[in-house]
Amino acid sequence: MPRILLTIAYDGTDFCGYQWQPKQRTVQSALEESIKQMFNKKITTFASGRTDSGVHARAQTLHFDVDTSIPAEKIAHILNKYLPADIVAQKSQAVAIDFHARYNDIKKTYSYLIDTRLQPDVFLLRYSLRYPYKLNTRTMRIAAQHLIGEHDFSSFCSNKSAVENKTRKIHQLDIINQKGLIKIIVSGNGFLYNMVRIIASALIEVGAGRIAIEDINNILAARDRRQAPRTAAAHGLTLEKVEYR
Amino acid sequence: MPRILLTIAYDGTDFCGYQWQPKQRTVQSALEESIKQMFNKKITTFASGRTDSGVHARAQTLHFDVDTSIPAEKIAHILNKYLPADIVAQKSQAVAIDFHARYNDIKKTYSYLIDTRLQPDVFLLRYSLRYPYKLNTRTMRIAAQHLIGEHDFSSFCSNKSAVENKTRKIHQLDIINQKGLIKIIVSGNGFLYNMVRIIASALIEVGAGRIAIEDINNILAARDRRQAPRTAAAHGLTLEKVEYR
Repeated sequence: MPRILLTIAYDGTDFCGYQWQPKQRTVQSALEESIKQMFNKKITTFASGRTDSGVHARAQTLHFDVDTSIPAEKIAHILNKYLPADIVAQKSQAVAIDFHARYNDIKKTYSYLIDTRLQPDVFLLRYSLRYPYKLNTRTMRIAAQHLIGEHDFSSFCSNKSAVENKTRKIHQLDIINQKGLIKIIVSGNGFLYNMVRIIASALIEVGAGRIAIEDINNILAARDRRQAPRTAAAHGLTLEKVEYR
Repeated sequence: MPRILLTIAYDGTDFCGYQWQPKQRTVQSALEESIKQMFNKKITTFASGRTDSGVHARAQTLHFDVDTSIPAEKIAHILNKYLPADIVAQKSQAVAIDFHARYNDIKKTYSYLIDTRLQPDVFLLRYSLRYPYKLNTRTMRIAAQHLIGEHDFSSFCSNKSAVENKTRKIHQLDIINQKGLIKIIVSGNGFLYNMVRIIASALIEVGAGRIAIEDINNILAARDRRQAPRTAAAHGLTLEKVEYR
C-alpha cells in the first residue's frame, strides 16, 4: 500500500487548530473527511505537527497510506475538489513505507507577521498582528542572534506542554521590515508549544524598548515561562515550510 | 463647520454591504458608530456609492461635516482607534463645503480577481473568485475592447436597479494575468448595480470559450439583463479608487 506525503495550505481563521477534536471544526477532521469522500474509506493522517487555533499554514505536511491506482502526484489535484475552500492541497508524492511526516529528520520554518503601520493593510487583518507603533528592528535583530543555536527553550514554551526535553535548535531567525510590515522568519529542528509566538512577543518587546537586548539571555537562562512575555496572537503565525533531509 | 473627505479600506467579508440597514452589520453603520464614539455626536456620512454585501474596498470615499478642533488630516489616524479591525481609515482631508463624495465629478476604479490556478492561494480565498480552469486572456482582452467607451449598459445591470439612465462610460478595462491569477481592472465615470460583476462574468465566459467575442456586442445591443451571464460572486470584487476632478 503506497504511502503518500501530502503538502497542504490552510487559512486557520475558521478552524479550532489542526488536530482532531470532538465536535470542533479542525484542519485534520476537515481533511480526513475529504480524503474519506475521495477514497470512500476512512484513512488516518499523520501530520508534521499540530498548529494552534487560528494559526495558518502555507505548507503543512502529512502522510497517509492508501490503496489506490491514482498516481501519487495526482492525488493533491483531485483532493482539491473535495476539500473546503480554506484548505488547499499543494502537492502529493509517494514516499517510502517507513517515512513519517513527524518523526523523520525535519526542518521547519514559521513566519510571524506584524503590521506596524498607522494605516494597516485591512486585507492582512486575518494574517498579521496589528501593532500600530514603532518597532526598532535593529535591536530586534541583535536580540534574535541570542536565540539562534541550541538552547533549552523552557522560558519560551507554554506551561501546558507535556514535553520533557525542551532543547531545540534554531537555525535562522530573521527580521524583515518592508516599510513597517515586519516579518519574523524562524527555522529550526522543531518547536515547542507556543514557542514561535512567545519568541515573536519577546522580540516585539525588545523592539518597543520594554525589554533590553541582554534580557533575552536572562529570560533564556531562567528556563521559566513566567520570565518571558505573554504569547503573541495566533493569527499572525504561519507555518511556511516543512523540510525533510 | 469643516467638511471632511475620508478615505477608508474595508474587508467586506463580514459586512452586509456598505449601506446602513436595520439590524445588520454594514460598513456605514460600523463607521458612523465609530465616528459617534470619537466625536461624541451622531454624524451622517455620504459615500461615493454603496458596495454590495461581500465586496471589499481599498479606497472608498465619503464626506461628513464635523465641528472639531482636530486638524482634518489627523482625523483618519485617530478614528482608527475607534474603528473595528475590518475598516481602516486611510486618509482624511478638508474639502469645500459644497463638495459631495457622490455627486462631484468622479472616476471610479474596481478590480475583480480570479484565481485560475489548480493550487489556488488559500490566503486569497476571501478576495478572489476561485475558478480552477484555463481562461484565454487574449480573447478576454479583445472582448473587453468592445465594452470600453460610452454605452447603454442595461444588459450589464441588475433588474433590481431603479436607475433610469443606464448609459455609462468605461475609460479603461484591463486584464492582467500573473501566472494564472487574473485581475480585471475597470475604471469609468460610474457603474450600475452589479455592473462590474456582470462584466467580469461575461469576460470569464469569453475566456472559457462559452461566449464568442462578437457576442459581447450582441449582449450590449440587446439592452436586456437576460442576455448577459449571471452575476459573478461578490467577494472577488474590490473598489480600488475613487478620484475627483
